[in-house]
Amino acid sequence: MEFSVAKADLLKELAFLNNVVEKKTTIPILSNLLITGASGGQLSLAGTDLDATLKTSCPATIKQGGTILLPARRLFDIARNLPDADIHFKSDGSGNMNLTCERSRFRLFSPTPENYPSLPETPPLPLAVSAGILRTMIPRVLFATSQEESRYQLNGVQVAVNGRLLRMVATDGHRLAFIEKPDSLSVGEAGKPVNLLIPKKTLAEVARLAADATDADIAFGQDDHHVFFQVGARTFASRLLAGQFPNYEGVMPKSNDKSIVFETDRLVAAFKRVGVVADETTHAVKLHTAEGRVEITAQSPESGEAVETLSVDYPGPSMTIAFNVSYMMDFLTAAHSTQTRFEFKDEISQIELRPVDGDGYTYRYVVMPMRA
Amino acid sequence: MEFSVAKADLLKELAFLNNVVEKKTTIPILSNLLITGASGGQLSLAGTDLDATLKTSCPATIKQGGTILLPARRLFDIARNLPDADIHFKSDGSGNMNLTCERSRFRLFSPTPENYPSLPETPPLPLAVSAGILRTMIPRVLFATSQEESRYQLNGVQVAVNGRLLRMVATDGHRLAFIEKPDSLSVGEAGKPVNLLIPKKTLAEVARLAADATDADIAFGQDDHHVFFQVGARTFASRLLAGQFPNYEGVMPKSNDKSIVFETDRLVAAFKRVGVVADETTHAVKLHTAEGRVEITAQSPESGEAVETLSVDYPGPSMTIAFNVSYMMDFLTAAHSTQTRFEFKDEISQIELRPVDGDGYTYRYVVMPMRA
Repeated sequence: MEFSVAKADLLKELAFLNNVVEKKTTIPILSNLLITGASGGQLSLAGTDLDATLKTSCPATIKQGGTILLPARRLFDIARNLPDADIHFKSDGSGNMNLTCERSRFRLFSPTPENYPSLPETPPLPLAVSAGILRTMIPRVLFATSQEESRYQLNGVQVAVNGRLLRMVATDGHRLAFIEKPDSLSVGEAGKPVNLLIPKKTLAEVARLAADATDADIAFGQDDHHVFFQVGARTFASRLLAGQFPNYEGVMPKSNDKSIVFETDRLVAAFKRVGVVADETTHAVKLHTAEGRVEITAQSPESGEAVETLSVDYPGPSMTIAFNVSYMMDFLTAAHSTQTRFEFKDEISQIELRPVDGDGYTYRYVVMPMRA
Repeated sequence: MEFSVAKADLLKELAFLNNVVEKKTTIPILSNLLITGASGGQLSLAGTDLDATLKTSCPATIKQGGTILLPARRLFDIARNLPDADIHFKSDGSGNMNLTCERSRFRLFSPTPENYPSLPETPPLPLAVSAGILRTMIPRVLFATSQEESRYQLNGVQVAVNGRLLRMVATDGHRLAFIEKPDSLSVGEAGKPVNLLIPKKTLAEVARLAADATDADIAFGQDDHHVFFQVGARTFASRLLAGQFPNYEGVMPKSNDKSIVFETDRLVAAFKRVGVVADETTHAVKLHTAEGRVEITAQSPESGEAVETLSVDYPGPSMTIAFNVSYMMDFLTAAHSTQTRFEFKDEISQIELRPVDGDGYTYRYVVMPMRA
């Protein structure tokens, strides 16, 4: 195989591919990229960790077509240090690839591609959504997934399509993030609702791909075991998570009849300060409501105690609600809203937070209180 | 004790103090700061890890003097999240300190100061050097100290004063960094030469203090076991390292009769690229000299090989010198020089690197070659 490619074109794709290829893989062949080209002007590149697969391409001048493997990390580290010029690749016929770029020459081992796993074929993708919507929705739910690998249904995000509505929900059993937007789908089936349970690592990568796609449409769809996202010339496939996402509808509060609107900056600053003395394991903070004001307090035997007072528009009654302050900070950081509505019913029922200006999205965040 | 202090004034000192106080200390009382004030306008603050001690001060309105301890990290975390306003401190007489700042209130445990260790008294400091000279010299030698704790004489930098000349030398046994500047001392004794073996952590902190001191003079001196640096109102004391710094004079090459000048950027780029395929343990790279050019090569069984060619002004003879490329990168990164002179004698003698423009400093870097 022999081809030339502009360093900048190749480097951009290698950066995305290296997010997918595992640095420390127990299956050595997976540390390689699969590179394919027929005579002509387009080189195909693919990388996989068996769970997720990225296929992409880059303009090239292909003198002799073929299929080869090259080490993903090493190729990336070389390319990013090369001058901004063409890189010429030529197989030496005995398992090595020679690279030249101006006055730099490399010979890299190029294992035989026969043992590389077969990659999922992309089916027709019937749905599409603008990259901007994915960029907004994904980071607003991703943080609420579980970190415990044993709870594998909670290691992902439920992505639901119903008509043109797109919804994402994530929970770790202690808090739940929910976002939806009607009329999200720019291309969509009128068919039956779709529910996909997508690993958090996959959605993080989709968010990165969407960040590079400005306002382009991202097509998506599924086969029996995979979800596929098409972002320009890049196709990202991932195994779906098996198992049943919890039935969260019952957890969403329906009778929270009290609410307080906070200036988000001031609430964040107060939480940060009281968080310094909160118990280091539970991160427990209490919110005491009274007419016209809120006190936020924390205390721990090793640290001392803190009391923050905020003036708010609240008629009563007095109540004390306890919660994990780091759950609150996660939401306030992700929401990017100047004002935040805190909705509650009593001292033991679910708390709900929302941005006051949802900007076209319905964004809800539910937190289970602690015992005060 | 009762006092008020502007948040910004306090925060700046707390940031420096927290560099000295260990985060995870086995002696709990050392996680505190010692805060002292008599009636008047200046609060003294000190922190120590027993090896290094920082004493500083900050303007305050002291209503009732005294001496207290407060947790260093917690106070810093609270202060940096407080609004830019005055913080009021008041002891409650039973082991707690109450802090108020606008609508925030804290109560922190304030252990009794009797058990806090006594801190070294600052002796008269007979020497002084401008902060800019320390900022230049320290980072140019610090990286060459040993990372092996057992080689404790090599865990520090030898700082030597001879007349008005200041010199710093560091080595880990494989490479050596040497920098000196005549006429460095703005205030200095005409007495006998001074040799101080200063821990690397201490000099790193001195560099941070110097970074905040623009062009001010930094006074320094020693007692039997400590070195002291006075940077404005801040005094930094550190134990000196015991033991004998190696006699390095014999290692400094005296008969390197061949030299090549490189454009530093091009040399760094070439080293970075060949470094990708160099052996991951030895980082071995070879430099082959020939008339008018240099080839830089690396190879390893797992990676492949690399060849970089650079045109240089060199008459010969041909020679192959091998070295650890990461040692070279450390120097080239620290030196900030557009051109670098590479001096050598043969394939087995010490290599020396220097910036072509020393800018008033004599900066030399000696590397032992590997067997080619």
